Amino acid sequence: MPSDVSLKILSESLGNTVLVRLRSGRMLRGILQGYDQHMNLVLEQAEELSADNSIQRRLGVIVVRGDNVIMVSPTIKE
Amino acid sequence: MPSDVSLKILSESLGNTVLVRLRSGRMLRGILQGYDQHMNLVLEQAEELSADNSIQRRLGVIVVRGDNVIMVSPTIKE
Amino acid sequence: MPSDVSLKILSESLGNTVLVRLRSGRMLRGILQGYDQHMNLVLEQAEELSADNSIQRRLGVIVVRGDNVIMVSPTIKE
Amino acid sequence: MPSDVSLKILSESLGNTVLVRLRSGRMLRGILQGYDQHMNLVLEQAEELSADNSIQRRLGVIVVRGDNVIMVSPTIKE
Amino acid sequence: MPSDVSLKILSESLGNTVLVRLRSGRMLRGILQGYDQHMNLVLEQAEELSADNSIQRRLGVIVVRGDNVIMVSPTIKE
Amino acid sequence: MPSDVSLKILSESLGNTVLVRLRSGRMLRGILQGYDQHMNLVLEQAEELSADNSIQRRLGVIVVRGDNVIMVSPTIKE
Amino acid sequence: MPSDVSLKILSESLGNTVLVRLRSGRMLRGILQGYDQHMNLVLEQAEELSADNSIQRRLGVIVVRGDNVIMVSPTIKE
Repeated sequence: MPSDVSLKILSESLGNTVLVRLRSGRMLRGILQGYDQHMNLVLEQAEELSADNSIQRRLGVIVVRGDNVIMVSPTIKE
Repeated sequence: MPSDVSLKILSESLGNTVLVRLRSGRMLRGILQGYDQHMNLVLEQAEELSADNSIQRRLGVIVVRGDNVIMVSPTIKE
Repeated sequence: MPSDVSLKILSESLGNTVLVRLRSGRMLRGILQGYDQHMNLVLEQAEELSADNSIQRRLGVIVVRGDNVIMVSPTIKE
Repeated sequence: MPSDVSLKILSESLGNTVLVRLRSGRMLRGILQGYDQHMNLVLEQAEELSADNSIQRRLGVIVVRGDNVIMVSPTIKE
Repeated sequence: MPSDVSLKILSESLGNTVLVRLRSGRMLRGILQGYDQHMNLVLEQAEELSADNSIQRRLGVIVVRGDNVIMVSPTIKE
Repeated sequence: MPSDVSLKILSESLGNTVLVRLRSGRMLRGILQGYDQHMNLVLEQAEELSADNSIQRRLGVIVVRGDNVIMVSPTIKE
Repeated sequence: MPSDVSLKILSESLGNTVLVRLRSGRMLRGILQGYDQHMNLVLEQAEELSADNSIQRRLGVIVVRGDNVIMVSPTIKE
């Protein structure tokens, strides 16, 4: 149910790396392979990051249930 | 499902900086690029603020899932 | 979905100062500019109060997401 | 969506003092002026009680959002 | 929405004493006077029990909002 | 709303002992007498288990509200 | 309600080992036997893992209620 703008950003991020902050406090980074209007996400090459953005754990492919998501951010590529 | 007044304020804030308080206690500031009736928000040049309003982390573009939002406030521009 | 009595009280409070207690424990005071059946609220000249009712932070205009609201109270004006 | 028995008890309590326990642990006492099927409540002369039932804070008229309510109890009047 | 078996047990318990465990950790005991498919409950002669099952507080008639209920148990009467 | 496989396992467990882990951290064991698509459960001869699987408290018949359930497991009978 | 991509990954994982992270912080590993659009899961030969991925407890067959799931990950098989 995100607005068109939300979905547009997620759509533009397909195939690109995104950062995902979860309610548990965890931060994930991975390549966005899918999403839906509930912010259920599919990430590839997903990694769990520690507070200083270093990699804490490699997760591979993950399906994230949307109601755990606080925010999604495309990573900047300039 | 916010009232017309809620949506009106969000609509008037498009393109302007807003403050967003999240349930996790985090405070975000960014330029509002989109929203919907669930208060899903898209912010640009988003920043996470610490308790004294100094910038703690630059987030770039973010999609915020509405059910994490406590309140949204347009920043005053006089 | 509040009862007619709830909506009647909110309706009578439009333009007047209300106190709002949030789930986070925060107490807000502001002039009620809008509301809906989910208790999403729009407050103007909103202030965050500390435990002794002194002003802790001025917030200006805020849109409060209803599911964070515990109770709303019109302030007495006699 | 309370059963008919729930609504019957709330209906019989209109105009009478009720005790309301909230999820936050707070206990409220006030005269029930309204309610609905979600247990949204309107109380008049509402008071917040401390653990020993003494009055901690006078709240006046309050609208309580039902999803914060654990239980409602009519106070006994014999 | 409990299964027919759930409703059957609640139905058979009408007029009898039940134990109710709440999410807050509280344990209630009272005579079941009503219920619905959301497990909203009406108890009479309700008592709050302490960990050793002694009576901590007499509550009289209470309406319990179902989403606070973890489990309901008829008390054994043999 | 569990999948057919979920319901099939619950169905096959009727009359058998199951383990139920609750969100509160509690572990229950009892004979499954009923269930529905929300995982509301009816258990007979239910017992609350401590961390080492010893019996902490006998509960008799209980109706468990499904939204407190983390997982249900048939106990192995070979 | 996961996207087609979510369901595709779950579908491809049927009969294979998956890792499931729960809101409680627990990590499960088991063979995926079923799932639905709410991420209710059926796992066989399920094990609870400790932080260092060693087996903490063998659970056998389990039905996991989807709203406890943070993420599901197929384990890599190269």
